[in-house]
Amino acid sequence: MTATAGDLADRQALLLLAHMVEPGDRQVGRLVRRWGPVEAVRKLVDASSGLRQQESLAARLTGVEPREVESRATACGARVVTRVDREWPSQLDDLDAAAPYALWVAGAGDLRLAALRSVAIVGARACSMYGEEVARSWSAELAAEGWTVVSGGAFGIDAAAHRGALAAGGVTACILAGGVDVPYPRAHDALIARIADEGLVVSESPPGEAVRRQRFLSRNRLISALTRATVVVEAAERSGTMATAQAAVAMNRPLLAVPGPVTSPASTGCHRMVRDGEAVLAASIDDVLGLLDLGRDAGAPAKRSDERDALSAQERCVLDAMPGRGAVTTERLAVASGFAVLELLGSLGGLEATGWVQQDAQGWRLAARSGTRTTRTGRA
Amino acid sequence: MTATAGDLADRQALLLLAHMVEPGDRQVGRLVRRWGPVEAVRKLVDASSGLRQQESLAARLTGVEPREVESRATACGARVVTRVDREWPSQLDDLDAAAPYALWVAGAGDLRLAALRSVAIVGARACSMYGEEVARSWSAELAAEGWTVVSGGAFGIDAAAHRGALAAGGVTACILAGGVDVPYPRAHDALIARIADEGLVVSESPPGEAVRRQRFLSRNRLISALTRATVVVEAAERSGTMATAQAAVAMNRPLLAVPGPVTSPASTGCHRMVRDGEAVLAASIDDVLGLLDLGRDAGAPAKRSDERDALSAQERCVLDAMPGRGAVTTERLAVASGFAVLELLGSLGGLEATGWVQQDAQGWRLAARSGTRTTRTGRA
Repeated sequence: MTATAGDLADRQALLLLAHMVEPGDRQVGRLVRRWGPVEAVRKLVDASSGLRQQESLAARLTGVEPREVESRATACGARVVTRVDREWPSQLDDLDAAAPYALWVAGAGDLRLAALRSVAIVGARACSMYGEEVARSWSAELAAEGWTVVSGGAFGIDAAAHRGALAAGGVTACILAGGVDVPYPRAHDALIARIADEGLVVSESPPGEAVRRQRFLSRNRLISALTRATVVVEAAERSGTMATAQAAVAMNRPLLAVPGPVTSPASTGCHRMVRDGEAVLAASIDDVLGLLDLGRDAGAPAKRSDERDALSAQERCVLDAMPGRGAVTTERLAVASGFAVLELLGSLGGLEATGWVQQDAQGWRLAARSGTRTTRTGRA
Repeated sequence: MTATAGDLADRQALLLLAHMVEPGDRQVGRLVRRWGPVEAVRKLVDASSGLRQQESLAARLTGVEPREVESRATACGARVVTRVDREWPSQLDDLDAAAPYALWVAGAGDLRLAALRSVAIVGARACSMYGEEVARSWSAELAAEGWTVVSGGAFGIDAAAHRGALAAGGVTACILAGGVDVPYPRAHDALIARIADEGLVVSESPPGEAVRRQRFLSRNRLISALTRATVVVEAAERSGTMATAQAAVAMNRPLLAVPGPVTSPASTGCHRMVRDGEAVLAASIDDVLGLLDLGRDAGAPAKRSDERDALSAQERCVLDAMPGRGAVTTERLAVASGFAVLELLGSLGGLEATGWVQQDAQGWRLAARSGTRTTRTGRA
């Protein structure tokens, strides 16, 4: 994708907004939806936004220089990704007026690709050994099958999920509530550094920003929005985990909860969600992945087009250029689709990761059940 | 209720049918539904039933004398209860063509009243210590609140349920797959004898009849049919417990399943049923009783009239004669309803047990939320 002048102006405005606005602020979000980022920033600075908090928002802009934003990101080993960038996970747009303006990302992987094939494993800090073991083993299984395990880096279930994925040599993404250079909790310094090395560390707050109570809640919505499904391993009632769960429900993303002994207080939230029909019971990762398949196989056509909507415009063009039967070489597909080979390979990578196409000796072909996850081996 | 000559003839025919027909035989059941018990027996004996197995059915009648049936029941400390008797649990008619013709009942309590306020607690023989503890403690709680705990006397969950209810000084009913004098498993001789002493032992097979594979399955349908709700504590897939569960679903009776650790094979059946929406997750007896309340409070008028349909004709008359507000003495209600005081007290006992009416110093009144279970004390 070649950036246009308009994209560049939008990008600078989005960076400014990411510095001005608290994550999840829907009032400003609606303004940006209505006017676009450039005009929204102008209105906020000119005091013509009509928002009560306009002055404090404008004040936050003092000293924010788009060029410096990039260099500060680089200084802490991160990059800035906005809605107009190729690495932007487009499913975040499901957050609507609460969608983030920019993400700071540390780690070698591509956030967009990682998120397309990701599951959130979250739960209580005060978890039981049983919950910790479920989080660890399921995350290891998911990671071994090529799924990105997304969590919040907290004590308990979150840490067990990250560690399970790392132990399996897989990819895990840690979404922080403070800046990407502000690991929290501090006791997880080393864990979070290892995740940045082998996976991805992500934040929607600029570097240096401290964690705050409200930011944990907005971070939780981001975990649900980034992933294909959210699995709650253990949760007491009225916990931060419940906020993540509610966010998943609000976006119509699959929410699953792991049962446990009815005698364990750590499982009460999970049991309540299942009993009340908010979450689907998950007794294994097959239940998790089966639900994703179900959404695709048994879903109404509307659901299938939702899946297509999650693709970028370029990916949709490439998909449409694929032959209905048989394989095609990259070169022929480049001709058929009108994209350069390098551009094409980027799109094919995304389409392969999400199970739309597969590659073999003959070249590229539509996946057996296009839209279904790629074959899982070694499992009943 | 005064027995008519027709009732007596029906009763004798039902006793004969109970000796001729295997429990749950729908072919004969449909015949009886269509022609009534007297005519159905005549057709079976006269070879005019059109059933293939007619000869073997008729042969089974040799030597069955209705008067002897009663004395043989008495000899093993039991009584025979048929559809035309006051003690018959009318909810068994929900089994339609598979409804039993007679029940042999040992124990001092009234089966009909006990069943009106009953919950089935069933599960795997090969259960875990966790499952056994849940069955024991929930049954004790239910029994302490005046609920009859119904189960099948088997090893594992069943036995824990009976023992929990007994330990709480409550009522428990054991439904046997063989005759009421054929305790099974033999290792539970003493347990089943104690249940007969303090609760109820019930069978639809005549005394002396052995247990058979098919009779366990038909016994399981009886457990679901007798009770207000069935709770599966632990169950592997493809187990006898699943038959009980399916019977509950087929009759639209609430089915609940207790979750457990996902690492426990004994909980797989429960998790599967909850995941697939066949059973509601139960994390406490409040979930069980709450579901019964829900059916009554939130139910459509149709549900409420279902509840009324479960009452006997006499109970409905008594209920209609109750004043809408305030209390009424037994004597005044006798005048208003047209029943003799003794008859009336029998009906009022049933209506009180099922939460339609309550008694205080002033006399009888409609329960606060008529149709709701009576007050549960000492619980959050």
